[in-house]
Amino acid sequence: MNFIDRFKGIVPPVATPYHADGSVDTLSLKRLIRHLLDGGVHGLFLLGSTSECVLLDAKDRGRVLETALAEVNGKVPVVAGVMDAATDVCLNHARLAKSLGVDGLVVTAPYYTRTNQAETIDHFRYMHGEIGLPVVAYDIPVCVNIKLLRDTVHNLAREGLICALKDSSGDEGGFRMLIHDFKDKPHFRLFTGSEIVADTAILSGASGCVPGLANVDPHAYVRLYDAAARGDAVAARREQERLIDLFQMVFWSGSELSPGAAGVGSFKVALKHKGIFEHGHMRRPNRPIPDTVQARIKEHLMSLGLS
Amino acid sequence: MNFIDRFKGIVPPVATPYHADGSVDTLSLKRLIRHLLDGGVHGLFLLGSTSECVLLDAKDRGRVLETALAEVNGKVPVVAGVMDAATDVCLNHARLAKSLGVDGLVVTAPYYTRTNQAETIDHFRYMHGEIGLPVVAYDIPVCVNIKLLRDTVHNLAREGLICALKDSSGDEGGFRMLIHDFKDKPHFRLFTGSEIVADTAILSGASGCVPGLANVDPHAYVRLYDAAARGDAVAARREQERLIDLFQMVFWSGSELSPGAAGVGSFKVALKHKGIFEHGHMRRPNRPIPDTVQARIKEHLMSLGLS
Amino acid sequence: MNFIDRFKGIVPPVATPYHADGSVDTLSLKRLIRHLLDGGVHGLFLLGSTSECVLLDAKDRGRVLETALAEVNGKVPVVAGVMDAATDVCLNHARLAKSLGVDGLVVTAPYYTRTNQAETIDHFRYMHGEIGLPVVAYDIPVCVNIKLLRDTVHNLAREGLICALKDSSGDEGGFRMLIHDFKDKPHFRLFTGSEIVADTAILSGASGCVPGLANVDPHAYVRLYDAAARGDAVAARREQERLIDLFQMVFWSGSELSPGAAGVGSFKVALKHKGIFEHGHMRRPNRPIPDTVQARIKEHLMSLGLS
Amino acid sequence: MNFIDRFKGIVPPVATPYHADGSVDTLSLKRLIRHLLDGGVHGLFLLGSTSECVLLDAKDRGRVLETALAEVNGKVPVVAGVMDAATDVCLNHARLAKSLGVDGLVVTAPYYTRTNQAETIDHFRYMHGEIGLPVVAYDIPVCVNIKLLRDTVHNLAREGLICALKDSSGDEGGFRMLIHDFKDKPHFRLFTGSEIVADTAILSGASGCVPGLANVDPHAYVRLYDAAARGDAVAARREQERLIDLFQMVFWSGSELSPGAAGVGSFKVALKHKGIFEHGHMRRPNRPIPDTVQARIKEHLMSLGLS
Repeated sequence: MNFIDRFKGIVPPVATPYHADGSVDTLSLKRLIRHLLDGGVHGLFLLGSTSECVLLDAKDRGRVLETALAEVNGKVPVVAGVMDAATDVCLNHARLAKSLGVDGLVVTAPYYTRTNQAETIDHFRYMHGEIGLPVVAYDIPVCVNIKLLRDTVHNLAREGLICALKDSSGDEGGFRMLIHDFKDKPHFRLFTGSEIVADTAILSGASGCVPGLANVDPHAYVRLYDAAARGDAVAARREQERLIDLFQMVFWSGSELSPGAAGVGSFKVALKHKGIFEHGHMRRPNRPIPDTVQARIKEHLMSLGLS
Repeated sequence: MNFIDRFKGIVPPVATPYHADGSVDTLSLKRLIRHLLDGGVHGLFLLGSTSECVLLDAKDRGRVLETALAEVNGKVPVVAGVMDAATDVCLNHARLAKSLGVDGLVVTAPYYTRTNQAETIDHFRYMHGEIGLPVVAYDIPVCVNIKLLRDTVHNLAREGLICALKDSSGDEGGFRMLIHDFKDKPHFRLFTGSEIVADTAILSGASGCVPGLANVDPHAYVRLYDAAARGDAVAARREQERLIDLFQMVFWSGSELSPGAAGVGSFKVALKHKGIFEHGHMRRPNRPIPDTVQARIKEHLMSLGLS
Repeated sequence: MNFIDRFKGIVPPVATPYHADGSVDTLSLKRLIRHLLDGGVHGLFLLGSTSECVLLDAKDRGRVLETALAEVNGKVPVVAGVMDAATDVCLNHARLAKSLGVDGLVVTAPYYTRTNQAETIDHFRYMHGEIGLPVVAYDIPVCVNIKLLRDTVHNLAREGLICALKDSSGDEGGFRMLIHDFKDKPHFRLFTGSEIVADTAILSGASGCVPGLANVDPHAYVRLYDAAARGDAVAARREQERLIDLFQMVFWSGSELSPGAAGVGSFKVALKHKGIFEHGHMRRPNRPIPDTVQARIKEHLMSLGLS
Repeated sequence: MNFIDRFKGIVPPVATPYHADGSVDTLSLKRLIRHLLDGGVHGLFLLGSTSECVLLDAKDRGRVLETALAEVNGKVPVVAGVMDAATDVCLNHARLAKSLGVDGLVVTAPYYTRTNQAETIDHFRYMHGEIGLPVVAYDIPVCVNIKLLRDTVHNLAREGLICALKDSSGDEGGFRMLIHDFKDKPHFRLFTGSEIVADTAILSGASGCVPGLANVDPHAYVRLYDAAARGDAVAARREQERLIDLFQMVFWSGSELSPGAAGVGSFKVALKHKGIFEHGHMRRPNRPIPDTVQARIKEHLMSLGLS
């Protein structure tokens, strides 16, 4: 079965564990991969925003890919982010990822450079032309400061430069429109990046979800996907609502942490409480989750039967 | 005379020339440095946005610094940008820059990571604490998606983490307020990054200007600075208006290029027409300035007596 | 049965027909009301954005309310928008609406005035305290330039100042979070204002939808609501997809018209083609839908069995 | 001398005093007009944002115009804002203003309606065509949520629809560009709306300034203008810096008030302390300046020799 046939369902963006000194903790990473595979996830997204990808240098990125790919061992498709501000650096990341055996790449618009839609399409053209792996477009304007417009997604798909989209734009209406636009092209995969509308995205025809929160509870997302994929809206919603409860921890750090750090940081603290990660901190400049919030997350997991 | 005493006036952000194959063209870079020094500039800002810094890997950045520093040979103070999304990568850039002999660092807020004001201050604290070179804060929200708020600049200055600010925020009113705030601290240097309000910034009390357009006509910016610094508003305005005329070329590429690419690209094409650069292109994903615009820039330079 | 028990389901924001000279066309308005009631809608929202409310003076607003209320004659609950930049003018609109017999008010944040969250809560406090009708908060930041934050909605509800929310913010994730927050308070009504995610909003627990497009095809939205309310996700999605097809006409006017004018203008042209409105134009400064687009809308309606 | 010859210099946007019950206080308004004329201002802008124009109904607007025009009695040119969301309501305001004898109108883009650039030009075309008074375009995107783009200003001027621009966009670079663009058309008047860069705007070639703070200290702004207009940058800056000191009071209300309310509210409190206004409050939903800030403003005025 080729890549795109297998590439759907729950594809968690894998978090990156560190030792106390900040170096990548490969043992914890292997435990996380096993936890996710045990949860029944359908694929893995390595080096996404949840991995703190832009805080990892080329060597760290290689270590994460090698460790995770060895542990996955072909059981599910694996895609890898190649985030960088520059086309040529993205290409270097992509060559490394390809050489290590990933099944596809995840590519955002360039950032810092204030690239427009046309230049962004060029960027995807270079990635496609020079690497030759399937490419997932990743729409995440809060990070890269540009939205992939509806026309741009169509142009990229029409030209064969991308085979899928991960939508983390927050524009769920626009995402629904894309699902509608591509309804006669079921092999173009549309994933939502939202943790909290996964049920309705899949009920509407999305191919799957890339939820950071699935690091913490992959089983629930897989149950949600299975329910939604068979059209059981009630069961899917029940899972979704429990996951929205779980998700509330990302709001507890208040204004001290930025939203991204509060989100990923909470997931990592939960993984520590679950015994999967040795440590729960992020790389600089992200601050650690406050101790009081860490304690509250521990109780939260227990109250939801997750530790 | 120590760094901060010398660090004022016209400090161009130096553009990066490439060979046809995209590698750094050190001969052209030396010509540009000599051109700028001949123009009388008071300092140089290497590896700024105008240099396409985020399109340069660590090796390229090192080559630019080495080449430029050798050519400058201590004649003027040199600061170097260390732009990256991650604190630890910025620190690596900073260590390299320090080892090569720059006089100070230019640091933006982290990007991609959606860092807030508090985390941004932490980032500056790490840079200051671990490198020990003077730091210029660089406020460029169009690139990094966060504004350095007035309070943040005050906190950074009060804690001694920065000695200067380069304001490319487009918020000239906010910049005027900062000039006012720091009027009793003349050793805190405030530079505008705007090409087109340099005269009034300096007349208002700014320490100087970091204009990308000074790559093309450093002499005029130095004349402008000298006039404004001695309070001759009429002469300063005359120079400024001629420079605004020159600047119009950045609008000629229309919507095909993003504003940043159209700006830097125009400067590089002008440097090619002036015989300073071998080639005028930028790195990917930036498109080249259209041929018709390149021709128009050539005429523009002639009509303004610049080639 | 009291207001809030009845206030759910499909509540179209009623469009305003004009004579050729721009005055309100009460005969066409009555036809539209009958069309909507025949379609089975569960309530009506008069003087919303779709009505071009801010282009109607107090006299016109009164005429719309009188005409519509007489035609409805108590068959369904009727709420009225009281949009204005100023609290005191909103209060005047509200007193008129109350005297004419509406069942509830729809209130946005003040606009033009750059009001913050606290001042916006004050505004709702004045509306509630001085009028004494049920109030629906209307979150429409594209028009009023401020988002009703999650905390603000909670504060308004906790204080009893509002009984419902219409969400036209485009932030479907935030809306889902509110549905979750209020899941134990079923009498707090949550309506989406989006035409294209009505099915999933209702499947997720929303009370209903306020779709401008329901002016054109109320029957389909009522079928969608009935399907979603009984948990039939497949049937609801089928209706939704047909409505998304219908909705495409709003994109056909290109950049000549602003998105709001293109949307409401398309609905009015469709109502003209359906024989409900005499004329399809909007008030100034909104331009008419281009003739070619008007013709295309006519074919579109026929192809979808709607004329 | 015709209108445009006289229309330059300091043109304060006149604040609106109220009695305790919120009705317009015409006696205080007359005192303010005399205070401004005594200060030597070159014109008056009635019913601008500083007047809380959108919080005034048609009757109040008429009262303000009548009272002020009687007091001015032709001594300086008077322009009147006609702000409203709708073209036709703006036209009504304009007809009233014309009938009462204003010299020109001040027109913003429509708001709430999400009007684009083309529709905004249409709006100005209607205002120009149906009223026949000189029109000043008022660029204030924080209130109306659309920026008048450089091309739009050129189109409006070229077509003769406007004779002047008041720029409150905060985009001082863009304003400088417009000054440059119009340097050969000295009768097209360009005013900055910024209190804190008036000196440099005028030194750069602007026709004048429309500073809300001039309600409090018109003499200083007139001195600033005179200095800048004769090219005395040092004297202009000295006045500007003292006015920036005075302006700090707008920041003292913290996050409790929105920036607009904190600004206008501070000016009104200062006018009360100066004995010009009976009361210093604003209309709802704007909150009053906190008592502690009111006391601090009193001391501030004394320390600056203003009461």
